[in-house]
Amino acid sequence: MEYKTNKHYENFMESLKNFQGDTNCPVFRTLSMLQGKWTLRVIFFLMENNSLRFGEIKRKLPNVTNTMLTATLKELESDEIILRTQFNEIPPRVEYSLTEKGNTLVPIFVELGKWEKKYNA
Amino acid sequence: MEYKTNKHYENFMESLKNFQGDTNCPVFRTLSMLQGKWTLRVIFFLMENNSLRFGEIKRKLPNVTNTMLTATLKELESDEIILRTQFNEIPPRVEYSLTEKGNTLVPIFVELGKWEKKYNA
Repeated sequence: MEYKTNKHYENFMESLKNFQGDTNCPVFRTLSMLQGKWTLRVIFFLMENNSLRFGEIKRKLPNVTNTMLTATLKELESDEIILRTQFNEIPPRVEYSLTEKGNTLVPIFVELGKWEKKYNA
Repeated sequence: MEYKTNKHYENFMESLKNFQGDTNCPVFRTLSMLQGKWTLRVIFFLMENNSLRFGEIKRKLPNVTNTMLTATLKELESDEIILRTQFNEIPPRVEYSLTEKGNTLVPIFVELGKWEKKYNA
């Protein structure tokens, strides 16, 4: 298989040999980070829009509660996938946007989406 | 951003607009498929070895029970990621290997692994 001659593939297989459990595997860590019920959708909305306010995200997710959305945003912020910017206005305005790290997830999602569509269309 | 001019990216963003909930999103479906505690590791072992028997996989996962491993393998088989081949010998021999669909996950995992290592090294 073509990809097996790829240097990235070799490094990847090498790193797999060293992982003993879930938390040491880079692929597992990435997947875990994205597992929340609302996580992917929040990322997708921020891919489509440069920045969004809390209320704007909430309106796009009719079934989410404030608590759930706050928890999702906090987790994405602590994973450095989104950036929370507070503007010192009255009343204070807060906007969320993707970080560079968050933006580099896009090509991976494109591949995941292609894979799923190819096989489960 | 460079990838935004990519045709795959455009198709991807187009398909995102159409998804109303978790189950309709191709990325979410792929991620869900990979969420089991042992799922990724079983796939990784089958990436490193062309085929493995039940007992060989079990020895690589010291904490797994027969029930959990059987459930993981059945799920991967029903998702068409692994192939179960039974050889009519006495006693019957069963081997597991990756399908073509399973093999095409490899480049995606390489990207996920690179992403995680780049940002969380």
